[in-house]
Amino acid sequence: MKLHGTMKINSLSHLEIGGCDCTILAKDFGTPLYIMDEQLIRENCRSFVKAFSDHYPDIEIVYAGKAFLTMAMVKIIQSEGLSLDVVSGGELYTAYRAGFPMERIYFHGNNKTPEELTMGLELGIGHFVVDNLAELEMLDKQASSMGIKQKVLIRVSPGITADTHHYIQTGQLDSKFGFPLYRDSAFRAVKEALDSKSLIFNGLHCHIGSQITDVNAFTSAAQTMLSFAARTKEELRATVNILNLGGGFGIDYTGEDGNLFVGDFSAPITATVKEALKKYRLPPPRLVVEPGRYIVGNAGTTLYSVGSVKDIPEVRKFVFVDGGMSDNPRPALYHARYRAAVANRMSNSYGEKVTVAGKCCESGDILVKDIRLPEIKSGDLLAVLSTGAYNYSMASNYNRLPRPAVVLVKDGRADLVVKRESYKDVIRNDVIPDRLKK
Amino acid sequence: MKLHGTMKINSLSHLEIGGCDCTILAKDFGTPLYIMDEQLIRENCRSFVKAFSDHYPDIEIVYAGKAFLTMAMVKIIQSEGLSLDVVSGGELYTAYRAGFPMERIYFHGNNKTPEELTMGLELGIGHFVVDNLAELEMLDKQASSMGIKQKVLIRVSPGITADTHHYIQTGQLDSKFGFPLYRDSAFRAVKEALDSKSLIFNGLHCHIGSQITDVNAFTSAAQTMLSFAARTKEELRATVNILNLGGGFGIDYTGEDGNLFVGDFSAPITATVKEALKKYRLPPPRLVVEPGRYIVGNAGTTLYSVGSVKDIPEVRKFVFVDGGMSDNPRPALYHARYRAAVANRMSNSYGEKVTVAGKCCESGDILVKDIRLPEIKSGDLLAVLSTGAYNYSMASNYNRLPRPAVVLVKDGRADLVVKRESYKDVIRNDVIPDRLKK
Repeated sequence: MKLHGTMKINSLSHLEIGGCDCTILAKDFGTPLYIMDEQLIRENCRSFVKAFSDHYPDIEIVYAGKAFLTMAMVKIIQSEGLSLDVVSGGELYTAYRAGFPMERIYFHGNNKTPEELTMGLELGIGHFVVDNLAELEMLDKQASSMGIKQKVLIRVSPGITADTHHYIQTGQLDSKFGFPLYRDSAFRAVKEALDSKSLIFNGLHCHIGSQITDVNAFTSAAQTMLSFAARTKEELRATVNILNLGGGFGIDYTGEDGNLFVGDFSAPITATVKEALKKYRLPPPRLVVEPGRYIVGNAGTTLYSVGSVKDIPEVRKFVFVDGGMSDNPRPALYHARYRAAVANRMSNSYGEKVTVAGKCCESGDILVKDIRLPEIKSGDLLAVLSTGAYNYSMASNYNRLPRPAVVLVKDGRADLVVKRESYKDVIRNDVIPDRLKK
Repeated sequence: MKLHGTMKINSLSHLEIGGCDCTILAKDFGTPLYIMDEQLIRENCRSFVKAFSDHYPDIEIVYAGKAFLTMAMVKIIQSEGLSLDVVSGGELYTAYRAGFPMERIYFHGNNKTPEELTMGLELGIGHFVVDNLAELEMLDKQASSMGIKQKVLIRVSPGITADTHHYIQTGQLDSKFGFPLYRDSAFRAVKEALDSKSLIFNGLHCHIGSQITDVNAFTSAAQTMLSFAARTKEELRATVNILNLGGGFGIDYTGEDGNLFVGDFSAPITATVKEALKKYRLPPPRLVVEPGRYIVGNAGTTLYSVGSVKDIPEVRKFVFVDGGMSDNPRPALYHARYRAAVANRMSNSYGEKVTVAGKCCESGDILVKDIRLPEIKSGDLLAVLSTGAYNYSMASNYNRLPRPAVVLVKDGRADLVVKRESYKDVIRNDVIPDRLKK
């Protein structure tokens, strides 16, 4: 099977990631365990920078923190020289506490609260990506009262429907995100930003969705955005210093999603941008892209212990693991497909078809349906691949299951970056009012 | 609109729950806020006990903790004399720390870990509901080594497909839960439990799914279970002291789900049981049912602050709130429908059609699609009704949003039962390894 990053099969036929034997990781840190391959994360950062810089002079790569953000991850992003996209006060707080340079922050979101706007202004973040008129007015007022000049991008909804799960399509007209081009909504937003004394209009943003594997969706968006930039230049004398085309670059989850390389995206996107700049006689803006899943998705592996195996002859063989939809809700939410391997007995032979189910008290708690695995039994370690994005970040305490630890592996060492929750953590915020104590 | 429990509209046209004005609750505790109506929870407990006891002599009502479990909730269940169904070590720990009598615990789950089995044995819980053969053997061995005689029920998968979302159907043959009747799997499990020296076979359990509104699914299950009980009596001399028919009693979310009362279930179920007992000449077992959602679903309300309102003329008007799929993943997971009201300006007039969206950075983060609401604007308070079950219990920190507080309201007082998470809570378990600090 196709292994990612530093994964290899060692002499004991165990899965090894970052030079760490998964059976040792399970012993040292317990299961379920999220394992993040630091070298692959860094390689993904670098290949993104290179793939776009090779084709375009002024590039800024912004990591989309919602995919996976912890303080250690912030430090990696910082050391790789990337910028950071945050979508909430909590993400901003994480970056701030980790010492990330605030100038390199882009603050996104369709409904930033007044407190979040104030927090961003106080911390001196680089850009707010303004999503709607109410936010524009609130930010203008708040910045003005604080005596701050705040750079903003205007988020445009370009009216493009990407071919992905409808939950994670974001660029279409009927979207909660951004100003539509329709009826000049985006045009008026740019005008209002230009007119503001406290806001500095610095460019445009769009984002067409997540897990997109069709480059045409990106090039269409780029064309639309530059045509709009040309109009704002002509009619409003607006200067688009930054053209932020968002993220959504898909990854290969199953080995059957096709070979996706950042170069497959960067060449046509930058070519389209350059062509459009020429056509509209626009000065080249800084080109910004915001990968999230692409940076961390394949760099993450979840390690589970196999518990009971339940065979219903001629119907289905279930393999139960000690986690489930509480640590990976994506199969239940998006019908997401994953690959898995028996980490303590790696083999290229494909055995019988099984279904990997979690331990949550719910039939929908199926992690991988109908997968061929080598013979598997209680006590084995199951590795589910490509769980680096939208797993830890979406994890819950459903069924009061403590959330797993996260370890960062590199060159044979494993560092804890998120401690495993304890039962005490789970009840930490519970209060019994006095009157119920009797 | 139909109001639940102690809800009323007060003289200021504000929504009041448990004698507490929602606008005051929002000021005192902030938003988003889960509000639990203690009186309605207690009334639901009592109506369940009464509805079944009226028709059958020996009844035990077991609250299914997975719907909503905090230490305060445990105290309410305890004081109402109900038993408790837990599905994990975390739920058991919550009950234990709240001082719940361990004899009244039923421990469920398709993949209990060895640690969870040991924990239950050590704490002296009443019953394990054994789900598969590996668990039966592991529990037998562990109880034996600890010198404990442990009561168990055998969970049977009765082969009944309930009419509900397929994620929460659990009684069909192709299920991760229980021993199928098929090929004598359940029969052999009962035999093995009877043969064990450390396990005391005390009866049978089944559970056919969640949010079921068709009583026939329950009566079919009861018939199947008693026919099976008769066979185990005849062939194995097994005595089913407890017949646990599980839960899954549906509630009315939208006002259009029909009028569901526990009496509509209890009369036909108990009648079916009594008839089958007569038919098979069985002594009457204790009848156990396990409501979860029915006890808390309509007793919970989530209060949000309205932020931006985004109008896309002729397409959709979005109302954004300060929470979302992080505190209520059910619309994204199950296409669940909810009702909502403007809590600070209650009115029976229906205004325009809007879509209530959360603040998570994801298009799937829609809480209520296409709902008619009175005119609504930024700063209003939106109450989403019937969020007591599977909301707090499934909440995540997606987008690093802190999880909301939970308040328990009764007779004009509001007690915090779960503290709001802070940003500090969100990064509490984050660690930056030394080598990344430079």
